[in-house]
Amino acid sequence: MWAWELQGGFGLQNLRRVERPDPTPGPGQIVVQMSAMSLNFRDLLMVEGMYNPKQRLPLIPLSDGVGRVVEAGPGVRRVKVGDRVCPTFFQGWVSGEPTMEKLKTPLGGPLDGVAAERMLLSEEGVVVPPAHLSDDEAATLPCAALTAWTALVQNGGLRPGETVLIQGTGGVSLFALQLTKLLGARALITSSSDMKLERARALGADAGLNYRQTPGWSAWARAQTDGRGVDHVIEVGGAGTLEESIKATRPGGTVHLIGVLSGTKTELTLTRVFMQAIRLLGVLVGHRDAFEQMNRAFAQAGLRPALDAHLDAAALPEALGRLGQGDHVGKITLGV
Amino acid sequence: MWAWELQGGFGLQNLRRVERPDPTPGPGQIVVQMSAMSLNFRDLLMVEGMYNPKQRLPLIPLSDGVGRVVEAGPGVRRVKVGDRVCPTFFQGWVSGEPTMEKLKTPLGGPLDGVAAERMLLSEEGVVVPPAHLSDDEAATLPCAALTAWTALVQNGGLRPGETVLIQGTGGVSLFALQLTKLLGARALITSSSDMKLERARALGADAGLNYRQTPGWSAWARAQTDGRGVDHVIEVGGAGTLEESIKATRPGGTVHLIGVLSGTKTELTLTRVFMQAIRLLGVLVGHRDAFEQMNRAFAQAGLRPALDAHLDAAALPEALGRLGQGDHVGKITLGV
Amino acid sequence: MWAWELQGGFGLQNLRRVERPDPTPGPGQIVVQMSAMSLNFRDLLMVEGMYNPKQRLPLIPLSDGVGRVVEAGPGVRRVKVGDRVCPTFFQGWVSGEPTMEKLKTPLGGPLDGVAAERMLLSEEGVVVPPAHLSDDEAATLPCAALTAWTALVQNGGLRPGETVLIQGTGGVSLFALQLTKLLGARALITSSSDMKLERARALGADAGLNYRQTPGWSAWARAQTDGRGVDHVIEVGGAGTLEESIKATRPGGTVHLIGVLSGTKTELTLTRVFMQAIRLLGVLVGHRDAFEQMNRAFAQAGLRPALDAHLDAAALPEALGRLGQGDHVGKITLGV
Amino acid sequence: MWAWELQGGFGLQNLRRVERPDPTPGPGQIVVQMSAMSLNFRDLLMVEGMYNPKQRLPLIPLSDGVGRVVEAGPGVRRVKVGDRVCPTFFQGWVSGEPTMEKLKTPLGGPLDGVAAERMLLSEEGVVVPPAHLSDDEAATLPCAALTAWTALVQNGGLRPGETVLIQGTGGVSLFALQLTKLLGARALITSSSDMKLERARALGADAGLNYRQTPGWSAWARAQTDGRGVDHVIEVGGAGTLEESIKATRPGGTVHLIGVLSGTKTELTLTRVFMQAIRLLGVLVGHRDAFEQMNRAFAQAGLRPALDAHLDAAALPEALGRLGQGDHVGKITLGV
Repeated sequence: MWAWELQGGFGLQNLRRVERPDPTPGPGQIVVQMSAMSLNFRDLLMVEGMYNPKQRLPLIPLSDGVGRVVEAGPGVRRVKVGDRVCPTFFQGWVSGEPTMEKLKTPLGGPLDGVAAERMLLSEEGVVVPPAHLSDDEAATLPCAALTAWTALVQNGGLRPGETVLIQGTGGVSLFALQLTKLLGARALITSSSDMKLERARALGADAGLNYRQTPGWSAWARAQTDGRGVDHVIEVGGAGTLEESIKATRPGGTVHLIGVLSGTKTELTLTRVFMQAIRLLGVLVGHRDAFEQMNRAFAQAGLRPALDAHLDAAALPEALGRLGQGDHVGKITLGV
Repeated sequence: MWAWELQGGFGLQNLRRVERPDPTPGPGQIVVQMSAMSLNFRDLLMVEGMYNPKQRLPLIPLSDGVGRVVEAGPGVRRVKVGDRVCPTFFQGWVSGEPTMEKLKTPLGGPLDGVAAERMLLSEEGVVVPPAHLSDDEAATLPCAALTAWTALVQNGGLRPGETVLIQGTGGVSLFALQLTKLLGARALITSSSDMKLERARALGADAGLNYRQTPGWSAWARAQTDGRGVDHVIEVGGAGTLEESIKATRPGGTVHLIGVLSGTKTELTLTRVFMQAIRLLGVLVGHRDAFEQMNRAFAQAGLRPALDAHLDAAALPEALGRLGQGDHVGKITLGV
Repeated sequence: MWAWELQGGFGLQNLRRVERPDPTPGPGQIVVQMSAMSLNFRDLLMVEGMYNPKQRLPLIPLSDGVGRVVEAGPGVRRVKVGDRVCPTFFQGWVSGEPTMEKLKTPLGGPLDGVAAERMLLSEEGVVVPPAHLSDDEAATLPCAALTAWTALVQNGGLRPGETVLIQGTGGVSLFALQLTKLLGARALITSSSDMKLERARALGADAGLNYRQTPGWSAWARAQTDGRGVDHVIEVGGAGTLEESIKATRPGGTVHLIGVLSGTKTELTLTRVFMQAIRLLGVLVGHRDAFEQMNRAFAQAGLRPALDAHLDAAALPEALGRLGQGDHVGKITLGV
Repeated sequence: MWAWELQGGFGLQNLRRVERPDPTPGPGQIVVQMSAMSLNFRDLLMVEGMYNPKQRLPLIPLSDGVGRVVEAGPGVRRVKVGDRVCPTFFQGWVSGEPTMEKLKTPLGGPLDGVAAERMLLSEEGVVVPPAHLSDDEAATLPCAALTAWTALVQNGGLRPGETVLIQGTGGVSLFALQLTKLLGARALITSSSDMKLERARALGADAGLNYRQTPGWSAWARAQTDGRGVDHVIEVGGAGTLEESIKATRPGGTVHLIGVLSGTKTELTLTRVFMQAIRLLGVLVGHRDAFEQMNRAFAQAGLRPALDAHLDAAALPEALGRLGQGDHVGKITLGV
């Protein structure tokens, strides 16, 4: 089978399309024939060596994809040959609280990822995506969609009548927007681009602000909530935006910390956090149980991920390069 | 009646013992004859003008105290003349989520505080403290004890078998220690003083570390939990310690942010917060319902606050000065 | 001012339109000029003496209504003259856990209700309803809508992708239907009438069953969820339906017990409750904080209550009689 | 290896000590050499055919025990040869919400149980018990202790200052008593025997009532809480006691429904459940994550299960007979 490998060192130039022996499933294992993949910013950082400089190589990159079960080892019961499945981001996190052991099991680093013709997986490491989604759409769910779901639904208990401030139009942010609207809540979006704000409005955003034109957007966010402050912030900017996010948040409200860049330092004024009893919740994708709950929500609501470019899996380096340019709105996907 | 007033400017030297007219209760109001007060670091900052430089003067300082109802206005039903009561820190926060309006009602700034012979209060702004406590002991509950309760019990859902890392031996920290042990959990203490660690051990601490002798105490804390990390941190150091607190915390664990110094900036590496799904929860004292629940816990368990010096209410400036020196372990109280 | 009074004994025939002196607001009190009321089944039971045979008479009936503040006593800050407000069902339950004291304060029995020209209320006992609603619509919120909100949102934490089985098309049930759809979840309805099912479908129900034609509807409900069982049941039938509700519910799922008839005994097989770890949660309207959160949800989503007949407040006995016939779908309201 | 088998039909007389081939571990599997077992009432009902009349035979009975890993198949990582382990009650419930699939995996019926010299288990189906416990003590944890933990700690969020009413002195009840005291809460016990009440007091009960002498114990329970009602009831009586339990419970309080007898019908007045917003929560043992959390609590607190008789594993039928007589206080254990 073919696979993309990061070989000999970090950097897009070290991605090689190689041949690997076809896998054979042992007890409780399955082989999945991949049909689509999708890109996350984490994948680019991983390939560039910025996510984890100690990552061992060679590595098959990418965490998100979808395929079909083509072989099942002895004792497999959760799925069967022919089922369409998405591998879970954390292969070892089924449900419950995270632990260090569970958090060591992401695909696309440290574990080999989805950019391959076939994957050998535990039957415990896959879920069946919603039937109404195309392969490209289904391929976008494991990391970005689940992160948004874990933040807003699982950790945040988002309710109708609440307001969510969402930073930007990246993968997690667009899913957060869709989920906010699905739950009957209000979505405010910040972006550096009027064009992207327009796209966000088309996806349901109630109001948007170009932070290039209007810095200090916390005042705008508070004005949008009659001065109360927003109930949730999807904080993906990290270092540069956290202080503003905290200012935008109501007493007792929640800032969901989502990020990819390691080593980011930020200068933070803590006073407001305890003076307003604000909650800062780190979010790291989520577990399989949450993925399955999210799939039921997508299925029932007929929700569809926002897609941008579709390329061939053979064009992985180009696709990652395009991701790095940041002009897309919606997921970049690869077909096999 | 007599009252302590901060007059004309900030600073201990501007505290004056003055005469004020005796209050008369209106409908739903009570007059409470104070018998004891206790000091929090917030009180010192307030007097020094470091808590809120815009605080209007004159101000009667101090938030925590206890007294007896000596008069009740028409329609008062929650308490009656003769009842021993503690004023609540937030006069306007009965229960539920905090709001900006509720958070504007603390005693001892912006509202006049407890350092007076008599207080005029809404019947909604007091609770009956546990009967087994002396006046000095009861006077310590409204701010420091309730902060610890709100963090560990209300927000944290602390369980037996969990480990709590507690910074120092200040007011909130000692209550956090006692509550941790009451709940059947494990308490680790850091301090700059072996003597204070000894005192903490006498109050039930399971292990202690002198951070002057051993900086980078997160490694010690992790070792104390077989490498897992602690479940909760009572973070009172703020700027200087948050990074270490986050390192000490298990995936999915909670850092309770408690503080008093305004304007504190800290440089924070956010990566670990989202890579380990850590929760940073700002804590701001708590509401009246929680105070009453806490009182039932104290009453049932026969728990007693740790006291240090007892002075006369006439010696308020000296008492605040002593608080600033930081040699005490346990609350400094004032008797009338 | 005029008021409807239940005088001398229970029964519709003992409702009298009387003159009462106009109220004058004391400190913290307001006078509200009523403009619309709405009926709940509880009101009929109260008048018939079936809700609480010990209710003291005379009683002004009805719990739900809306009006405008026409006078405000000294110190009133939450609302001002001219504001449109709904009285809260429990005048004494602002937020937090219920207590016996809080639960003794419903309007329309034991306290005098809304069927009057003017009401004297504490400023703490009202909320401002969503601006987009007509008076008739706003009048329906305090009891039925809040009960549905408390069950599904507050207690149940309803999520997209979950399925709610709703019994019938009464007041609480229709609001439960609208909230289920607002939250992106799935609504199944049972009814004895094809016409009412049709109306429910128009309001968003995903599937409906006529239980007259198909008894044992738990099998149908399970089939609708691929055999898993529903996540929530809005149980309003009580005695006759609880067993079937439990059978319809998934392991770990929730049956929300909502009812009005006192003294109802039911024979219940408990085995399934603990063998499937099912939760039976009694629901009793809800508190003021929840009412205000619900109002924000209605306002933001532009949600409108389903109305049936509108009568004049002078026709209260006729309106209650019509309620008893049970032919309506949507709330019966009274205008002044 | 030897094993106890229920052969040919239900009843103690059909228990046979047989020889079975020694198991060999496959991938991810372990062989555990049992050293102690403990009895639950469920085991007796299972053998008598009253728990599940459709249970297929032969069956190795008993769910609770402890042993040591003597062999590990390929890929086993959670435990290693030499570790002392308890099998989990539900072999397939690691964490998260229960599902029908997870609930079909209890030991001692439908799956073969622990009454054997050796057991073949998935490495996912065991936990390491606290080191300070003897084998007999460790053997008591999987079902009864975990049920009490799941009810009070996991589902109930028990806090200091709350009051728990515990019915009787059976296995779950005694663990509930110990956990209540460990959490700093108050324990009330009902029993039919003064001797058993005395034993419960020795284990920490704050008050006890002989319900033979004083029927209608809800009045007593309310009096013990100044009329407020208890916060939690450990309801193990089912049919006969639920009504009284509901009467004993405060508004918003929780009745934990724990039971073993199938087919039990009870006549229940629902009014109080919704008029007081009471929560009835079915409890079914619990998951592996909770078991491990509980073990940390036992280890840290040095908690020890209450034991009654110790017999030889060869005397299983006699031991089950003794369990049926109900004279014990504490667990009956079997040694190998």
